Amino acid sequence: MKNKSITSRDEDFAKWYTDVVSAAHLASYTSVKGCIAIEPNGYAIWEKMQEILDKKFKELGHTNVQMPLLIPESLLKKESELVEGFAPEVAWVTMGGSKELEERYCIRPTSETMFCDYYKDHVSSYRDLPKLYNQWCNVLRWEKETRPFLRSREFLWQEGHTIHATEEEAIKETDKMMEVYKWFHHEILAIPSITGRKTEKEKFAGAEYTLTNEALMYNGVALQAGTSHYFGQKFSKAYDVKFLNKENKLEHVYQTSWGTTTRMIGGLIMVHSDDYGLVLPPRIAPVQVTIIPIGSSSEVLDLVDKYELLLKNNGISVTKDLTDKSPGFKFAEAEVNGIPIRVEIGERDLKENKITFVRRDTREKIVESKDLDIVKYVKELLETIQKDMYNRAVERRDKLTFEAHNLKEMENILNTQPGFIHADWCGDETCELKIKEIKGCKSRCITEEPLIDGKCVCCGKEAKYHVIWGIQY
Amino acid sequence: MKNKSITSRDEDFAKWYTDVVSAAHLASYTSVKGCIAIEPNGYAIWEKMQEILDKKFKELGHTNVQMPLLIPESLLKKESELVEGFAPEVAWVTMGGSKELEERYCIRPTSETMFCDYYKDHVSSYRDLPKLYNQWCNVLRWEKETRPFLRSREFLWQEGHTIHATEEEAIKETDKMMEVYKWFHHEILAIPSITGRKTEKEKFAGAEYTLTNEALMYNGVALQAGTSHYFGQKFSKAYDVKFLNKENKLEHVYQTSWGTTTRMIGGLIMVHSDDYGLVLPPRIAPVQVTIIPIGSSSEVLDLVDKYELLLKNNGISVTKDLTDKSPGFKFAEAEVNGIPIRVEIGERDLKENKITFVRRDTREKIVESKDLDIVKYVKELLETIQKDMYNRAVERRDKLTFEAHNLKEMENILNTQPGFIHADWCGDETCELKIKEIKGCKSRCITEEPLIDGKCVCCGKEAKYHVIWGIQY
Repeated sequence: MKNKSITSRDEDFAKWYTDVVSAAHLASYTSVKGCIAIEPNGYAIWEKMQEILDKKFKELGHTNVQMPLLIPESLLKKESELVEGFAPEVAWVTMGGSKELEERYCIRPTSETMFCDYYKDHVSSYRDLPKLYNQWCNVLRWEKETRPFLRSREFLWQEGHTIHATEEEAIKETDKMMEVYKWFHHEILAIPSITGRKTEKEKFAGAEYTLTNEALMYNGVALQAGTSHYFGQKFSKAYDVKFLNKENKLEHVYQTSWGTTTRMIGGLIMVHSDDYGLVLPPRIAPVQVTIIPIGSSSEVLDLVDKYELLLKNNGISVTKDLTDKSPGFKFAEAEVNGIPIRVEIGERDLKENKITFVRRDTREKIVESKDLDIVKYVKELLETIQKDMYNRAVERRDKLTFEAHNLKEMENILNTQPGFIHADWCGDETCELKIKEIKGCKSRCITEEPLIDGKCVCCGKEAKYHVIWGIQY
Repeated sequence: MKNKSITSRDEDFAKWYTDVVSAAHLASYTSVKGCIAIEPNGYAIWEKMQEILDKKFKELGHTNVQMPLLIPESLLKKESELVEGFAPEVAWVTMGGSKELEERYCIRPTSETMFCDYYKDHVSSYRDLPKLYNQWCNVLRWEKETRPFLRSREFLWQEGHTIHATEEEAIKETDKMMEVYKWFHHEILAIPSITGRKTEKEKFAGAEYTLTNEALMYNGVALQAGTSHYFGQKFSKAYDVKFLNKENKLEHVYQTSWGTTTRMIGGLIMVHSDDYGLVLPPRIAPVQVTIIPIGSSSEVLDLVDKYELLLKNNGISVTKDLTDKSPGFKFAEAEVNGIPIRVEIGERDLKENKITFVRRDTREKIVESKDLDIVKYVKELLETIQKDMYNRAVERRDKLTFEAHNLKEMENILNTQPGFIHADWCGDETCELKIKEIKGCKSRCITEEPLIDGKCVCCGKEAKYHVIWGIQY
């Protein structure tokens, strides 16, 4: 409907973000506290994410299934760390129809429980392994503070849950899926994320270890976007998922889980968008090109149709805007919606044999001959935009990447301009908690890069890990 | 894992059904009462259904969105018929984390409420109309008796919710979407369903009228599989969804909703499958062809690879089974899983230049020269199977379609062999309730066919409607 004006990004980042979400019709608040309605433009991005990731998962041998939304309390309680981690933030169903339930159910905050419960009845021998299952579904976590896409009580995600006959194989799976998430961010979303292992404090409740994919937003705040967990036999022991191994002995399975969510849409916005609205990398844009006629002569309209058909037949996602809105209005709409390329075809220009391309990322206007090879030209321009957006994001990330050698330096950085802060750490949780006191700064991940100076940024004692720190969403 | 034996369909239909669901790995019971786990083979059918329907919806101008899972009680209560219709069967969330909620939420049994709540803030002028939204999601209804796919507490579905500027346009949409469901059943699922209007008693709570798509199972029991509702302005008045019409006057929008669910998988099974397991029509089969080598000579394996590649490159969904199981085991597995065509390639046969095709629907073996045009041959055979399955289903439906002129006749039919029973009706609910006393027989739909003898099958008075009756799942 109304195209709200967008607050300046540099002036008020939080307000700018919600303005873009609203102006680009990505999502809308609802009468349900902390839950959003994902609107057509937002859902189309999620569909595109699903399409690309699902194809990759299937290529790697995974299949989709669907487990129940509800988890009986007794089942959830079998794994103590999991229940401690999630109990404070689950929603409880206590009534069915007009009857009080004998046992209450929680709405899944994640589905390790249900997958274990399933696997225990469906695996008996090493021949049944591995099971490489994934599901696309909704989950609920009773968050206090919420923000569209980034943190909402209900969100959509995919959760892979695999079980294996050996530790080695399960660890390989955990790594592989983190590589998929990294690939997806770098190659498709044009987001130069970093990956590494979570500290003990920050890992998933019940996991042996957690790998994480961390993206840096334009404002220097980090966003966890994709995690991959190795469970070892923790859950399989709690839920009694056993198999006969090759030596004909009963053994508990080795397990992983990995997930990405609709919060990646939030990441996309906060890395690439600007004061004019959404900016989408071509590979994830549901619509890559829009053609807008100026005037309605048959010459103009014929060319619009011709280009549309040519592009469509060559696998480019294209629309044309033939509504009776003014050209200026259409331009603004294409811009706020983040369509990577806008093609303007006007009567006057055509007389000079010219058409205009407008790049959404740079807002640059390029005048070309109408006789150019439109398919080749657009394909190359889309690739250029994708590459340029990635490079700009790398530049921004690098500009906001710092190194700290002591607490004072860390404090200075966080008070001036947050970002990814590299600093050595002794491995002691006391130090981790002390750092957290500075604006809630947390360890993003432990990297495999060499130590910086070998001294803990907090206590100055011998460091064990090179850690990347940052404030998070 | 273990391939359970399947009870004979004619001996115990209910047991046969659950045996097929289990043996074909479509779904499994869970620790959550009334909720199933949809296994890979079952979910793949749902993905195929989604793919085909979603494409059709989008061709017709619909876009996907996602509304919240939870509905505040106060919002649900705004439309009295809806709340009366659904309140007895919703699940209530009363706690978030460890806190009792101020207002309880129900888990959506359907989403008219949430769509109205959204539309009221996003529509102001006739220029904003129509809104043609759909969502793919899970819903929950606290059913007492459940059966995999046919009736479970949680199920997956799509729900379209559209709003329009005129009654005429909304009615057209209601009809059009019923045509889509009918097309989907006849052309894709090979199920010769019938369509018509529900009686006042059987229509959706709050609808002006409901159109329904009704399929007849092998045992003569009917299955409602897809409904399309016209709401007029009932909901838009209750939820205050208004727009400025072309005459610049405020008017309430005209609304529709329409849905199909995972119960269609149950319908597929009960129309087509047999004592050997699942039988799938080629157009909905996730895997259309499986190639099974007998022996492991390079000649055999090369041909398996060659055929696989040829079929795959021509848009046919094909797998090969190269595991170390015995050929007989592989044949049985392909059979129980309902793969339409099995290609057997054996060393001995190849010496005679022969390969064998096995149709799943008829279990017929066809020996052909290995030099045939495999792509052409398989494409034609898939189409033949699709057509033959449809024709057999029509034959079965017609065999189980009856006509009744009085209550005695109706009773006789229902006690001997249930099916679709054509009979005239006066339109009085008393008669409808009296008929229901015979084995729970309900009106399936009012057809537009002419009256049979003009007399109500129950009271003998003047009939208003030609109705199709039947026992239902």
